[in-house]
Amino acid sequence: MIATAFAPGSIGNVGPGFDVLGLAVEGIGDRVTVELTDGPSRVAGVTGRDAGLVPADPSRNCAAIAAIAWLRGHGDERNVVVTLDKGLPLAGGLGGSAASSVAGAYAAFLAAGAPAAPPLELITAALEGETAVAGRHLDNIAASVLGGLALSRSIDPIDAVAIPVSAPWWVAVVTPEVRIETRAARAILPATWPQAMWIQQMANTTALCHAFECGDAELLGRALDDRYAEPLRSPLIPHFLEVKRAAVLNGAFGCSISGSGPTVFAIVPDQATGSRCARAMQNAFGEIRSTSHVGAIAKMGVRREHETLKRPDTRHPGPDTQT
Amino acid sequence: MIATAFAPGSIGNVGPGFDVLGLAVEGIGDRVTVELTDGPSRVAGVTGRDAGLVPADPSRNCAAIAAIAWLRGHGDERNVVVTLDKGLPLAGGLGGSAASSVAGAYAAFLAAGAPAAPPLELITAALEGETAVAGRHLDNIAASVLGGLALSRSIDPIDAVAIPVSAPWWVAVVTPEVRIETRAARAILPATWPQAMWIQQMANTTALCHAFECGDAELLGRALDDRYAEPLRSPLIPHFLEVKRAAVLNGAFGCSISGSGPTVFAIVPDQATGSRCARAMQNAFGEIRSTSHVGAIAKMGVRREHETLKRPDTRHPGPDTQT
Repeated sequence: MIATAFAPGSIGNVGPGFDVLGLAVEGIGDRVTVELTDGPSRVAGVTGRDAGLVPADPSRNCAAIAAIAWLRGHGDERNVVVTLDKGLPLAGGLGGSAASSVAGAYAAFLAAGAPAAPPLELITAALEGETAVAGRHLDNIAASVLGGLALSRSIDPIDAVAIPVSAPWWVAVVTPEVRIETRAARAILPATWPQAMWIQQMANTTALCHAFECGDAELLGRALDDRYAEPLRSPLIPHFLEVKRAAVLNGAFGCSISGSGPTVFAIVPDQATGSRCARAMQNAFGEIRSTSHVGAIAKMGVRREHETLKRPDTRHPGPDTQT
Repeated sequence: MIATAFAPGSIGNVGPGFDVLGLAVEGIGDRVTVELTDGPSRVAGVTGRDAGLVPADPSRNCAAIAAIAWLRGHGDERNVVVTLDKGLPLAGGLGGSAASSVAGAYAAFLAAGAPAAPPLELITAALEGETAVAGRHLDNIAASVLGGLALSRSIDPIDAVAIPVSAPWWVAVVTPEVRIETRAARAILPATWPQAMWIQQMANTTALCHAFECGDAELLGRALDDRYAEPLRSPLIPHFLEVKRAAVLNGAFGCSISGSGPTVFAIVPDQATGSRCARAMQNAFGEIRSTSHVGAIAKMGVRREHETLKRPDTRHPGPDTQT
C-alpha cells in the first residue's frame, strides 16, 4: 500500500538525436513514494532540489498524475498520497519531470502489488505526467524506464527500444544556474528544415546510436554533432563554447546540451576523466554558479528504492555547488 | 597490368535512410576489367544489362572515371582500357553506377599492383565516377565497397561505417521495366520538411540500423517506413502498393523502393521466402514486365573477380524476365 521508487535522470536528445535518443545516468534521479488512499489525492511533501518549485496540487504534479494514470490503466480507482525527493533540477535538461513521472508510475505499481510492470505500461502512464508539465516527449521517459541508451522510435503508438551499450563509458553533467523553460527552448527552433540539414542530423544520430552499441569512441566523437538545436540554444547558456572546449580538452569524446538545457553533458571514457571534465567545465562557466555530477551510464532504469545504488560522485542535492 | 573486379549492387536509402543507408546484395553486380595503358583511355566493350546505354566515351563512363581517379590519387599517370560486364540496370535503383565506379576503382588498384586499397581511398575514387553520372551520393558507393549495411555519416569529409548485420536475412529485388532517372526522382522531393516529419524519419532510420545490427525482425518491420521519398516516388512505379502488399503477405519483414526506383526491395528471413516474395511481387506488377533477384545480404563488398561467389538465384542478365 506504500512504496518508494527511484528513477534515474537522463540526457535528452544526446546531441543530434532530437526527441529520439535519451541516455540514463547512474547516481542522480528522483525518488517518489506513493501511498494508496481511498481519500483524495494529495502531495504530502517535496524535498531536495528545486523542492519549492514543484506543484503541490496533485492535478499539476507529474508524479501524482503518472501514479494515478498507472492505477486507472489497471482498473484501480484508488487515489495517491505522493512524497517526492528530487535529485534533479526542475527545468535543467536532465529529465527531471520524466524521472518524477516514471518513479511515480513505478511506485504506484509497487504500492498496488501488481505482478509486473511492462515497460510499455510504465511509459504510457509516465507520459501523462510528462505531457502535463513539459510537453509530450518520449526521450527522457524511455531512458528513465529502460536505463542506458533508449531510442524512441514512435510516440503514436509508443515504440521505445533499449539500445545495449557495450562500452563502460561515464557521463559528466554540469548544470549552470540559468533557467531555461523547455517550451521556450523549443519555440526558438525552426518549424521546417532544409533537406541537407536533416539528412546530416539523421546520419549523425544513426551513427551515434551505433557508436554506443559497438563502443566506438572515435565515431561517437564525430557523430555527437547537433546542427539543429545546439546552434540556437547555446546562446542561452553563457560560456557554452568554452565549456564544450574544456570538456573535449580534458578527454571527453564529445559534449553538447542535455535536452533543452541549460545542463551540458560530456561522454567520457571513465570516472576519473569524468571528474576532471566536470571540474574544467565548471571552471569554464566562470562567474555562473553550477552543479555537477559524474556517473556511469545507468545499467538499469526505474527501480524499487532499496535497489538504488550508492551515489558515487554526486554533488547533489544541497548547497555544495562548485562555482 | 590487367585485372577484373566485381562490385555488388546495393539497395540505396533502405527505406527511411535517405542518402544515409545502403545495403549490398549478394549475387548481382557489375564486373569491370581495367588494363593500364600509356595510350589514351578508352572503353573497350560493354556487355550485359543495358549495355547499349553505357557511355563509350571514357570521360563520361563512371568506371573509367573512377579507375583514373584511383590512379591519379596514387600518383599514377597511366590511362585505362576499361571493359564492363553489367549485371545491374543503368537507372534501376540498384546502385549500378556506384557498382561500376567501385569495380573500376578496385580493378585499377589491382592492375596497378598497389599493396592495399583502404576503403576511404576506394570510396573517394568511386565517388568521382558516381558524381559524374548520378550525383554526389555516398550510400550505394559505401555499400558496394564495404558490403553489408553501410552507413554514410558524412560526405565532406567522407565518413562511411560498416554496420555488422547479425541476422542471416535475404533480400528480394524486383525491377519493373519502367525508367526513372535519379535526378528527376530527386527533383520531386521537397527542399524543406517539417520538424515532426524528419524527426520521425530519423527515429525510423536509427531503429532500422539497430534492427539490422541486432537481428530484430519485428523492429525492422516497424522501422522500414519511409515518409519522405516513398509517398512521392511510388506513383512513378505502377502497381507499387500491390507489389508492397504482395511482399508483406508472402513473409517479407518490410518492403520499399530501392534508391530512386523503380526497383522495389523486400527484406526476408531466408532464400525460400525471398523466392516466394519475388514471384508474388512480379505477379503484382501485372502487365508491367520485370526482372527479379534473390540474394543474401552481401558479406563482403568489392572483390577480385575470382573471389566472386556463384550467383545463387539470379534471373539476370538476359531475356528470361518474368511478367
